[in-house]
Amino acid sequence: MIDLRSDTVTRPTPQMRRAMAEAEVGDDVFGEDPTVRALEEETAALLGKEAALYVPSGHMANQLGLYVSVRSGDEVWAHEHHHLVGDEQGATAVLARALPRLHSETPAPSDALLESWISGRGDIHRAEPALVWLENTFTGRVVPLADQRRVTGFAHRHGLRAHLDGARLWNAAAALEASPAQVAEGFDTVSVCFSKGLGAPVGSALAGDADSITRARRARKMLGAGMRQAGVIAAGALYALRHHRERVSEDHRRAAALADRIGEAPGITARAQTSMVLLETPQGTGERFLAALAGHGVRALSIGPDTVRLVMHLEITDRDADEAARAVAKAAAEL
Amino acid sequence: MIDLRSDTVTRPTPQMRRAMAEAEVGDDVFGEDPTVRALEEETAALLGKEAALYVPSGHMANQLGLYVSVRSGDEVWAHEHHHLVGDEQGATAVLARALPRLHSETPAPSDALLESWISGRGDIHRAEPALVWLENTFTGRVVPLADQRRVTGFAHRHGLRAHLDGARLWNAAAALEASPAQVAEGFDTVSVCFSKGLGAPVGSALAGDADSITRARRARKMLGAGMRQAGVIAAGALYALRHHRERVSEDHRRAAALADRIGEAPGITARAQTSMVLLETPQGTGERFLAALAGHGVRALSIGPDTVRLVMHLEITDRDADEAARAVAKAAAEL
Amino acid sequence: MIDLRSDTVTRPTPQMRRAMAEAEVGDDVFGEDPTVRALEEETAALLGKEAALYVPSGHMANQLGLYVSVRSGDEVWAHEHHHLVGDEQGATAVLARALPRLHSETPAPSDALLESWISGRGDIHRAEPALVWLENTFTGRVVPLADQRRVTGFAHRHGLRAHLDGARLWNAAAALEASPAQVAEGFDTVSVCFSKGLGAPVGSALAGDADSITRARRARKMLGAGMRQAGVIAAGALYALRHHRERVSEDHRRAAALADRIGEAPGITARAQTSMVLLETPQGTGERFLAALAGHGVRALSIGPDTVRLVMHLEITDRDADEAARAVAKAAAEL
Amino acid sequence: MIDLRSDTVTRPTPQMRRAMAEAEVGDDVFGEDPTVRALEEETAALLGKEAALYVPSGHMANQLGLYVSVRSGDEVWAHEHHHLVGDEQGATAVLARALPRLHSETPAPSDALLESWISGRGDIHRAEPALVWLENTFTGRVVPLADQRRVTGFAHRHGLRAHLDGARLWNAAAALEASPAQVAEGFDTVSVCFSKGLGAPVGSALAGDADSITRARRARKMLGAGMRQAGVIAAGALYALRHHRERVSEDHRRAAALADRIGEAPGITARAQTSMVLLETPQGTGERFLAALAGHGVRALSIGPDTVRLVMHLEITDRDADEAARAVAKAAAEL
Repeated sequence: MIDLRSDTVTRPTPQMRRAMAEAEVGDDVFGEDPTVRALEEETAALLGKEAALYVPSGHMANQLGLYVSVRSGDEVWAHEHHHLVGDEQGATAVLARALPRLHSETPAPSDALLESWISGRGDIHRAEPALVWLENTFTGRVVPLADQRRVTGFAHRHGLRAHLDGARLWNAAAALEASPAQVAEGFDTVSVCFSKGLGAPVGSALAGDADSITRARRARKMLGAGMRQAGVIAAGALYALRHHRERVSEDHRRAAALADRIGEAPGITARAQTSMVLLETPQGTGERFLAALAGHGVRALSIGPDTVRLVMHLEITDRDADEAARAVAKAAAEL
Repeated sequence: MIDLRSDTVTRPTPQMRRAMAEAEVGDDVFGEDPTVRALEEETAALLGKEAALYVPSGHMANQLGLYVSVRSGDEVWAHEHHHLVGDEQGATAVLARALPRLHSETPAPSDALLESWISGRGDIHRAEPALVWLENTFTGRVVPLADQRRVTGFAHRHGLRAHLDGARLWNAAAALEASPAQVAEGFDTVSVCFSKGLGAPVGSALAGDADSITRARRARKMLGAGMRQAGVIAAGALYALRHHRERVSEDHRRAAALADRIGEAPGITARAQTSMVLLETPQGTGERFLAALAGHGVRALSIGPDTVRLVMHLEITDRDADEAARAVAKAAAEL
Repeated sequence: MIDLRSDTVTRPTPQMRRAMAEAEVGDDVFGEDPTVRALEEETAALLGKEAALYVPSGHMANQLGLYVSVRSGDEVWAHEHHHLVGDEQGATAVLARALPRLHSETPAPSDALLESWISGRGDIHRAEPALVWLENTFTGRVVPLADQRRVTGFAHRHGLRAHLDGARLWNAAAALEASPAQVAEGFDTVSVCFSKGLGAPVGSALAGDADSITRARRARKMLGAGMRQAGVIAAGALYALRHHRERVSEDHRRAAALADRIGEAPGITARAQTSMVLLETPQGTGERFLAALAGHGVRALSIGPDTVRLVMHLEITDRDADEAARAVAKAAAEL
Repeated sequence: MIDLRSDTVTRPTPQMRRAMAEAEVGDDVFGEDPTVRALEEETAALLGKEAALYVPSGHMANQLGLYVSVRSGDEVWAHEHHHLVGDEQGATAVLARALPRLHSETPAPSDALLESWISGRGDIHRAEPALVWLENTFTGRVVPLADQRRVTGFAHRHGLRAHLDGARLWNAAAALEASPAQVAEGFDTVSVCFSKGLGAPVGSALAGDADSITRARRARKMLGAGMRQAGVIAAGALYALRHHRERVSEDHRRAAALADRIGEAPGITARAQTSMVLLETPQGTGERFLAALAGHGVRALSIGPDTVRLVMHLEITDRDADEAARAVAKAAAEL
């Protein structure tokens, strides 16, 4: 079975496992784990931020970014498909108690929308806007740096903060031919994931200014996510950070090739900007297509009524990608 | 100045003031205020519910309905323009910690939407759906009872609760030629307002089954909204409930007449189903139109870039409505 | 029946009712109610603060003081018997999400306790201290101004805020022969009640610096406690504020006299510093004593296993106090 | 340096590291990690519960137990020194929004206290009681099973739930010569720790009935603590659970011996029931004693003004314990 549901399904490589088995560790709740420290420092440096914090998931990295950026009842401006809106189990309401205000503009909210939303500020009926949220990449697509700058500039001119959900920031950097720090520029807080494109078994980080990260560290403890000898997993993340950032380009290359070949299948459209191939199948066929694909040895994920995603990752070889293309063609023919 | 911004601006009538001045009162925190009790009992009876609770505002009645119906982190399904989403200062996130899931279907969500939303239930990424929200009237328009039944039926078949924001339920009942109990039927909790169409100075109620209202009473105390000799204001609400329900039909009649006359003004479209006249002005002219209208002695409220509302209420006479029509014509001519 | 359970049970006087019936009102959600404005301005001036906010209860005034002073998860330092700990229905956890850290020192926490608590600050296990809470009067006893200054001074030296629960601040001022502003001095936020000693039917206020009160006003709207023509009740509070502040001294005089006379009853000890007489009955007799008292026409409240309180208020005359003394003597004799 | 601050400081043994390096893993967010499943199933079975959930820390296990047992604003009854009160960063208020009601009775609250607290139930001023909390062991002391039964029996008779903070349940079981299931009996939810006595690098579990654990699993995801290939750390926990439960008795033996030898030092009293030696030093000497001890090569932790704890654990040999005894004697002599 070729598992293309997500880049989170990767299992640690032998080298990662060795790094984890040999990791120097200490009690991280007392701040004494050298591997965690090294991971946090290298991550902060890569992103051009003062500090970073290792956490169990990208979801937590995002929620801590939110928690330290808003007061209870404040508005966070986001796209209706951003992860914090519908994919984080109500956490936005429970933890930060933020009220999402939603738009549907891609790749980033327009100036017209931002201006219209800020103009109602101070109305006694409305929540106070506090944070603008972006995601890069966003469902596999890259947000241009100029758009990011436009939005973060707007936020700061109006005293709002800006957060980047960078779960796939490494992919964005590769696709934009930019450094991670360039992609993170202008944001008060940024989350990155060691698990998705990089293939580590567990963990993400939140990066930002020292004060925000100090508060996030306290909030992480409050959530009960301070871990003891966390170095055993941080070692895997550190290995991935050091050795797997370059390889995401290969995922992009394979995704593009797969999209090209699928484009030849009748009735299916496919596109890929990064590691994610998004297929649109004829109306009403999404479920059936997924089942047919599984019958041909490929697992994929439905992300809309007739939209299917196939994600390239650490465990997928050229041969796997090839087989996946054939499976798609067969499944399409059976619709 | 003719104030048509909202039906909340009405001042108590001499009869109401007299009722308030003569009200029999007690300490309602100890449950000893006879006027509050009478108001709660009559409201419950009118709505066909077991119990009701007097609260300072429609906003609180809605938020208590939400608070007793969901657990932290649950989803409430609502229209993007429902009052609890953008007009209650983040309360939805702060108090009940509910996550709104938003649609844009009027007058009520379609079966297709409801089915699609319930089908994703149980996904570990998504909040648990708990409550379906309707509003009747909704921005001045009536939701047919058949639509209400369809939605509340769906909710109960799937173990969700249903709440009706009935701030203007009296108007809905009048327009639908139905009893208040018929409009409230099928909902677990219903909020109604004594201030808007009925003209009382302060207060709303939440009605529902006895257990929900007992919990709402505790939650009201938790919010600090238990009042001592609340009978002094409840008396005004009780007077309004007893004597002003019939008169909302007059507001509807005046609104319809005003909409008809405005329809003759060039460039402006107007419609009115209940007490609210909604005007659409030519693109980009909303602000200017409002100012012009004020110049001719009429205050109105902007509820969209080029949408203006004029609301009929207790203090508006036929002559006022007449003058308002002339003012609109003049303001339109000046655009 | 002479009702001495609480000074909250008073019904409005004819003058208050007249003031309410004649009150000039407007829509206070739009900030247009002149009576509410006058009440808020006079209250702020009396307390020597920049601004004040009218709210439905002392509980809400306190909770808003807490809400604007802490971030979620912060510590509030309080006495285990302060009202916000056990008498506000979990609001401290639900609204501000503050964690109470409790002492049992009266009339105010000692320097030793304050120093010991601040010394653990920054520990990753502990919540961040944010607010020190005092109550004056506190179960009928006065907190000396020197103690208040000592505690608020400590708070500000360490970057904490200080709040005064001044539900009975008018009684404290009378007993201390100080102005309300002197009692409120040094606190960032202060709550006062128009209902208890002053006898208004509904309402309290939160006073403080302009920024805190602006945020409290938004939070009040968030709670759903923005009221429309609130002037109808604010008029009663304003009348009470203007005409009943002096009269609390009479309550103190009657309470002292009552305590003196009770002191002659065998087995009962009584003390009164302000309007509250606190009786200690022999062990295990509290419930029986209360019932006996009721049999002799006096209602009182149990506030501990064998502690009973009798509160003087607006409706209690010298003759009532006299009768109460006789009833206590009889009830004591029957134990 | 001999580190006796806590049993959390242990580093994984070579066998644990090997187990982790060789662990079979999958994406646990999709429920596909076999090692995590095995750990959860074995834990549940050992504790005699239907299900268990692996989480990053004991703090989170406790907070999830709280989260699924109360509604916002409910009371949790606990000892003032229980971990959830002062050692979990305000989480009790932020996550479950529970209000702690605190006693100071050891080893468990008396019937008199429980009866007195339940008798006030339903009072409109008080939060609704929902959960009784115990901790076993509690600061190194064992709570007898009869006391546990008495308290959980009370809770269930009154419709409350009961939670056991079993961070050191393995120590309690060893000291009581009972099975883990016997110690967990009668509690709706129980937390256990794989890190403390057992020496795993990361993790705890919450166990209980299937429904509670399903809800806790959703809440864990909400917190962002769902981890991907969590098997890499669960393997360490599973190894510890299988191989290190017996060895906690050795910690107890060494602690008892150490306490005995310290008892001979002048001015110091020592006691140890399980793995924790608690020293009382002469008044005002706590800080100095700790420093002196460090000078002699032993790290300990202050847990009160003049109370110091020394904890035996996986890395401490008989020789270490011996050296620690000599260090204490020297440090005591220097006071």
